[in-house]
Amino acid sequence: MALLVQKYGGTSVGTPERIQAVADRVARARRRGDDVVVVVSAMGHTTDELIELAEAVTGGDTCTADHPREMDMLLSAGERISMALLAMAIRERGVEARSLTGSQAAIITDESHTAARIVEVRADRVRETVDGGSVAIVAGFQGVSTAREITTLGRGGSDTTAVALACALQADRCEIYTDVDGVFTCDPRRVPTARIIPQISHAEMVEMAQSGAQVMHARAVDLGARYGMDIRVLSSFVDGPESDDPNRGTLITEHPMAMEDLVLTGIASSRGYAKLILRGLPPGMRTPTDMLVALADAGVSVDMVTEAPDADGRVLLQLTVREDDLDRAKQVAAEVEAALGGGGAMEERGGLSRIALVGSGMSGRPGVYAQAYRTLMDAGVEVEAVSTSSISITLLVHADGEDAALRALHAGFSLDRPAEVPAVAAAG
Amino acid sequence: MALLVQKYGGTSVGTPERIQAVADRVARARRRGDDVVVVVSAMGHTTDELIELAEAVTGGDTCTADHPREMDMLLSAGERISMALLAMAIRERGVEARSLTGSQAAIITDESHTAARIVEVRADRVRETVDGGSVAIVAGFQGVSTAREITTLGRGGSDTTAVALACALQADRCEIYTDVDGVFTCDPRRVPTARIIPQISHAEMVEMAQSGAQVMHARAVDLGARYGMDIRVLSSFVDGPESDDPNRGTLITEHPMAMEDLVLTGIASSRGYAKLILRGLPPGMRTPTDMLVALADAGVSVDMVTEAPDADGRVLLQLTVREDDLDRAKQVAAEVEAALGGGGAMEERGGLSRIALVGSGMSGRPGVYAQAYRTLMDAGVEVEAVSTSSISITLLVHADGEDAALRALHAGFSLDRPAEVPAVAAAG
Repeated sequence: MALLVQKYGGTSVGTPERIQAVADRVARARRRGDDVVVVVSAMGHTTDELIELAEAVTGGDTCTADHPREMDMLLSAGERISMALLAMAIRERGVEARSLTGSQAAIITDESHTAARIVEVRADRVRETVDGGSVAIVAGFQGVSTAREITTLGRGGSDTTAVALACALQADRCEIYTDVDGVFTCDPRRVPTARIIPQISHAEMVEMAQSGAQVMHARAVDLGARYGMDIRVLSSFVDGPESDDPNRGTLITEHPMAMEDLVLTGIASSRGYAKLILRGLPPGMRTPTDMLVALADAGVSVDMVTEAPDADGRVLLQLTVREDDLDRAKQVAAEVEAALGGGGAMEERGGLSRIALVGSGMSGRPGVYAQAYRTLMDAGVEVEAVSTSSISITLLVHADGEDAALRALHAGFSLDRPAEVPAVAAAG
Repeated sequence: MALLVQKYGGTSVGTPERIQAVADRVARARRRGDDVVVVVSAMGHTTDELIELAEAVTGGDTCTADHPREMDMLLSAGERISMALLAMAIRERGVEARSLTGSQAAIITDESHTAARIVEVRADRVRETVDGGSVAIVAGFQGVSTAREITTLGRGGSDTTAVALACALQADRCEIYTDVDGVFTCDPRRVPTARIIPQISHAEMVEMAQSGAQVMHARAVDLGARYGMDIRVLSSFVDGPESDDPNRGTLITEHPMAMEDLVLTGIASSRGYAKLILRGLPPGMRTPTDMLVALADAGVSVDMVTEAPDADGRVLLQLTVREDDLDRAKQVAAEVEAALGGGGAMEERGGLSRIALVGSGMSGRPGVYAQAYRTLMDAGVEVEAVSTSSISITLLVHADGEDAALRALHAGFSLDRPAEVPAVAAAG
């Protein structure tokens, strides 16, 4: 008998039929003798509809900024609906179930409305519910602050609730059900040969998530990493016996089995980046420091920073930012440049995509850079900027060349080789 | 500076525009220097939509009976939405506001899901909110049980929340905003000369509500009576300066001003009644006792009971029940009749309406019966049954004659005389 934490996202409970399918799966798990804690998101479009109502009432689109406490109260209604419906559907199948709000489940957060952080999970009531023979259905995304206020966790909130509960309960398995089959080596809409990654480390998954893989939020993976909690990502749209295959989807685990001698585990990408090139700045630590501090103060997040000697003993600074932030970044950069003495020049390039090659296999392995550059050169894609971490290489390319780059890199690093099935089955 | 408790029903917060109108009124009250506690229902059709979802998920219409706890969890999402939206709308007007769930407002109930009774209101947090300079917006209809479960109060729940809070806070005024202008002397759709009752006692209002006046639920009025809390019923659809007239609508109060020498205060009616006539029963206390006990055990509510000597020293029993209960009542009555020795006969008449003449003015005043009968005879309406209490006379008539009866009685008891305005203005 295992204790399972299963999380179902918005599309997985988007209609009465999908809720019934989830209830079927949970009931099957109970009949097998497992204890089940379910974490649910709000149904499909509920959150969008609630936001539209708030905008209609306030006559604008700044309600989250203007009324954070009340937005949390409003949006937390969404999971209340989905969890009560799911509890009913499970009970209709002869299996006892009880829904619990974030407050009842004691998901204690800080007081940052609309983006609260979990500070503690007092899982006593969830455990009592399970020990009493019921499925516990916990509202994802929401909590209660130390000041007894209703809070929501912001982006990736429901995943985070699920992983936090799994950690607090020391669950045997944490399963994140979603609308795709798992974590892919690359976006299958862009790279048709992309395949599911059977196992991936937490660190690699964080890198994939931060670089555009939307299947799971980095924050929840990071929490799993800290507590050594394995997380399986799989589709809620697979029904019947196939659905109970224990090796479905992707297992995020501390020590993924190295099934193949692969340098890369996966490739993620996202659009909407720009770079800002500042020439003729004074040398020394003060230039990048002043620039980065000013940008951070202005709320501009800088992704990559390159510093290089320019002509005449001056310095060139290249910064990568989100395209949305480009105007603000230019303004701040011009101010800092003037404060540093002026005389510099600014150049910008927008419409860029950021491609992350992720894999702990690249660590300490020479030639990965070279292979990436050669692959892209052969594909006719120019690299605009590059940076690296121990388990990733991030490349900036023109958005026009993104798909070609992804396909070339996916093939060049042998990611489209099929996984060796026996090794996957042994992973358990 | 007064402390106001204002309750807004589903149609009063049914659209973003109506929510803004409510926010305008609340903001005006705050600017006048009053402290305001608002109790809100779910928006217009929210509850119906949630019930439809539950029926779709469970595949039937017995979800309330089958899953009472989860229905409470589900439906309580409704007020969460309306109260958060209203809080935002009020804050948009530069007035601080905070929404509180039934649980946060400490509306403590028993554990009867879907029909919980309030056992205590610990109004500390509501008072703190108001003392802190905010409008407190409290979810109507919902509470938290002593076992920390989310409960709902059933029919009339939001009115009850408002009155309970007003009592607990010792509010200066308790205002129930609704979609009609107040309590009418009779249903204005049926009797065009019906007018608003300026003042009515709690007991009269309970009688009116139980007899079909839907403007306010008897349960909330009853609570107000026990704590001596005056309640004003008025329309939320009146905007502008007229809206702030302190004498708008109907004041439910312990000692209503007797403005006119009227016998009746109002007339209420409802359809869907039937009567069951049992003849040839054995005389003695056992006959009605066994019959009423058996009907009560079967869940049949009996409205009027008449016992009269029949032929041959036998007894005739006439019972009034809801038409929906008629089949069950007949079955139970037949069983009891057989157990009493048999030999009786049963007769039924459906399609009846129940008309209640309400007025503490009739107490100790002879001839009211006579006047009612003569009025109905002149109108050509036959009385099928009659019963009385200290402040009401209840008449059963054929539904076909209901409208004629209402108009005749309304005129016959001088209810269509206009109220004397100076007396009303003095009521304050």
